[in-house]
Parts: sequence; C-alpha cells; structure tokens
Amino acid sequence: MTVFQGSTLAVFGPGLLGGSLLMDARALGVSALRVWARKEDRLKQVRDRGLADFASTDAHDVAAGADIVVLCVPVGGMKELAEKIVHSPLAENAIITDVGSVKAAVLAGAGEVCRQAGITFIGSHPMAGAETAGLEAARTGLFHHAACILTPTLDTPAPALNRLHAFWQALGCRTSEMEAAHHDSLVARISHLPHLAAVAATLASFKPDATMAQFAAGGLRDTTRVASGPPDMWREILLENRQAILPALADLHQATGELLEILEKADEGKLLALLEEAKTLRATRYS
Amino acid sequence: MTVFQGSTLAVFGPGLLGGSLLMDARALGVSALRVWARKEDRLKQVRDRGLADFASTDAHDVAAGADIVVLCVPVGGMKELAEKIVHSPLAENAIITDVGSVKAAVLAGAGEVCRQAGITFIGSHPMAGAETAGLEAARTGLFHHAACILTPTLDTPAPALNRLHAFWQALGCRTSEMEAAHHDSLVARISHLPHLAAVAATLASFKPDATMAQFAAGGLRDTTRVASGPPDMWREILLENRQAILPALADLHQATGELLEILEKADEGKLLALLEEAKTLRATRYS
Repeated sequence: MTVFQGSTLAVFGPGLLGGSLLMDARALGVSALRVWARKEDRLKQVRDRGLADFASTDAHDVAAGADIVVLCVPVGGMKELAEKIVHSPLAENAIITDVGSVKAAVLAGAGEVCRQAGITFIGSHPMAGAETAGLEAARTGLFHHAACILTPTLDTPAPALNRLHAFWQALGCRTSEMEAAHHDSLVARISHLPHLAAVAATLASFKPDATMAQFAAGGLRDTTRVASGPPDMWREILLENRQAILPALADLHQATGELLEILEKADEGKLLALLEEAKTLRATRYS
Repeated sequence: MTVFQGSTLAVFGPGLLGGSLLMDARALGVSALRVWARKEDRLKQVRDRGLADFASTDAHDVAAGADIVVLCVPVGGMKELAEKIVHSPLAENAIITDVGSVKAAVLAGAGEVCRQAGITFIGSHPMAGAETAGLEAARTGLFHHAACILTPTLDTPAPALNRLHAFWQALGCRTSEMEAAHHDSLVARISHLPHLAAVAATLASFKPDATMAQFAAGGLRDTTRVASGPPDMWREILLENRQAILPALADLHQATGELLEILEKADEGKLLALLEEAKTLRATRYS
C-alpha cells in the first residue's frame, strides 16, 4: 500500500498509457478509478476489463471527487478537457497532470486554464511505449523503470510536486524535474530527431529501388526502425514541438552536409575524426 | 559431404570472416586448410585452434595447391596479395575470390591482376557480421542464412561461377549475382548510407549535451547503433565506395533539408505525406 490508499484517480483517455495506468493503479491502493473517453464503445471496453468504477463521456462528471487527474489524450485535446475539469468538484488539493510528450504547449494550454481556476497543474512525461497505441497494447508494468520528467513552474506548491513524484515512483518510474522548455529541447534531441533521421534514412535508402532492401541486414533495419511509427501521431508530435526540433533538425542537416563535403573531397582525416567523435559521443550513453 | 570433398582451401586473413570460414570448412569436406596472415602471432592463434593444416606469412607458399583462395583482408591489401598468389602453383581451375564489402575496386585491383595472369577471379560479398572484427569474434554458422552477392564479369567461366555459388551455398548463404557497379550502389544504399545516417543522428542528438542521453529510450539507441562501429574500418569502406555513396548521401542530405523546410513552414499535409511514404517504403522490407 502507498500514500495513494483511498485516493480517487481520474484517467482521461484510456489508450496505451492511460490503460496501463489504470491496470497498475489498484496496486497503489487507489480506491476509485474514474475514466473518461470520447466514445462510448471505448468506455465499454474499459468497463469489460474491470478498469473503472465509473466511466463516462462527460468530463465534468468523471473529474468529480478526483485527487489525481491524468490527461492521457493527444496534446491538442487537453485544453478543451481542462476547461471542463476545472469546473468539476475536484477533491481538496487535487492535482491535474498529463502524459504528453511535449510540455511547453501543454503548460500554455491546459496548464494555463488550471492556473486561472486556481487548480494545481504539473506536466508529466513518462517515457514509456510511445510507438504503439491503443488500449489493446496497454499492460501492467509499462511504467516500470521508465524515466518520468516532471515540469513544475515557480508557482507549483511543493507538497503537490512531492505527491506527483511519489505517484510516478509508485508506478515504477525514475522521476526528475526540469523546466518545460528544457524538456522540449531534450526530447527534440533524443526522441524527435532520431525519428526524423530514421525517416530521412528510409527515404534515401529505399526510394531509388525498394527491391534492393531484400539484401539489407541489421544496420538498415535498426537505423530506420522508428520510421514505421504511426504517421498521424508523429505528425502531431513533430508539429507540437517544432520550435524545439528546428535547431536540432538544422544540426542534422548540417551533419549530413558535412559528411557529404568530406566524402566529396575524400578527406580521410576529417572522416575518421567524425566517425570517432560519433562513436565516443554514443559511448556516453550506450556501451 | 559436398563437391568440395578433397579440395584445398586457402584463406588469406583469418579475422571474423576468414576465421568463421575456416571453422565451417571442414564440414564441407575440404581436406586441406591453408592460412595466410600478415603476422606470426595471429598464425599461432590459428594453429592453436586447429584451424589450419598449413599456416604461413608467405603468400606464395600458402596459395600452393589451392582450389579455392578467399581473400579476407581489407580491400586495400588485396591487390598486393594477388600479385604473389598468381605466381604460386595453384590447383588446376583454381578460383580466387574475396569477401570485401565493395566490388568494383576489388575487380579493378586484385581482379585485374588475376585476369592478366589467366587465373579466374570472381568477387564475393557475403553479408555477414561486418560490424565486429577479429578472429576472437569468429564462429561456426556465421554465414548461415546470409545473403552473398557474386559479381562475375562477361569473361567469367560458367563452371567456375557455378562452383563458387555452390561453395557459398554449402556454407549456408543465399547467393545471387549482379554487376560489380550495381552491387556497390546497392550496398551504398542499404549499408553505407544507414551508417552515415546513424553517424549524423549521433552528432546532432548527443553533441549539444551528451548528458541528455541518460533519458533516451529505444528510438535513439536503435537509430544510432551502427555509429558505434570501428571508425578505422568504416573510414576505409566509405572511401572505397565513395563514388557509389555520394549520390545516396546527397539524397539523405536532400531529405533532411526537405524535412527542415516542411517543419519550418509547419506544412501538415507534406509532413504527413513524407511520414506515410517512409512507413510504406520500409514496409516493403520489414513488417
């Protein structure tokens, strides 16, 4: 049992992340699970799996009495939900958070709606399972060992922030804090840029003659793997975080240009230096 | 037993590929294994492992009586070896081949030396295990299920070509044939370009702040994996195949530029189209 014994948890959007959250919530001692989805058939699936004590398409009703509200919908839909939730009779000291993969836009949208209503909003980004989607893919333990970044502001009350850390830690996450803009720059480099690099590599490798790929081994497969992610989801992520991605993508474009120039000149020394630099940089994270 | 029963195999360069070849050769019924290495201490390792019936640093001696000679040294060293081998008393109808990852340069070097001496040279590229190196990494079954591309010329005698197909197939390879220049364009796209894309992605992702990488998940790891390959080896490969890589790398640079322009303009339609195109192209090879 945890400090969440007897708490009421409201999850908005029972997809991969929201569904997995519901599956693990009972183990935290949460006494009531409340679930919102846009469509009734999704709520039926949630009820059939025993993942909700109350499930409705009415956001105001679902938020009633919640101690912790977690928005697990696409970032573009969060502000509209927040506008309904803040007028619901939440529990005292309720916290609203989200699981969006960008944070400055969420803070400016749903976060600002909450701030104006006097409700505590703290952004969260649990870095787990973003490449598949849907309740079908949800599972217990999804958050175990995942990094979870919280993005408090100067106004965030310390007790609420501590409680949110404890919540994600109880789910198995390693939590840390950073400013929302810093978070967005970070994920631009470590998640969104690799995605764009994989897309560019796929286009350049496969496009001239897709049948060539029958000879390809592990290098091409791994380098391009994430380019098979859902285009709709990635379009949204890339556009939401475009301000942070642009300088990173400019660096990638510059790096491909530098390699091209080096190879055009057959500059052995510079080529080796760049290959060694990449190997050394990568070794800071992966062995 | 195979058609290679009683044959003499000479392997030049007992590294990962050469060593693995020696390990599997006995099972083909090869009766004599002859091994050349540049250094005596490497030959001692080969003898200690029971991988050679005759081992020497003298190329002329090692090639004597060989039915099949396989050059497993770096591409830059093949021509010099060929000049010694062609003056050795090879077996009648001997075939010289290699395992280099580029083929036009090998054909123009070692291949031309053999042609002028009236000896059959046919290029081979077994696509197995190129990212680690050394006899220490050699293992039985390395070639099993690997694609192996042969690059005959118009002069190649059909019986020799058939025998070389049978040789690699006996080792477990799926063999195919193509013109050397076509081979080089192919590996430029499916192997060398992904490597350069991984290097560029590593530089752009890690360079601004390598400590960021502690938060990274599977996407960054996979997209950049091959950038941890041996810089020396890759410098050589990239320079040897630079004529074929340049147009592929120009395509990659163009693709990163296109993504940058699309994101600068926040062009949702074009972004989605490109993400969908990449996903569709990749699905032609990987599910």
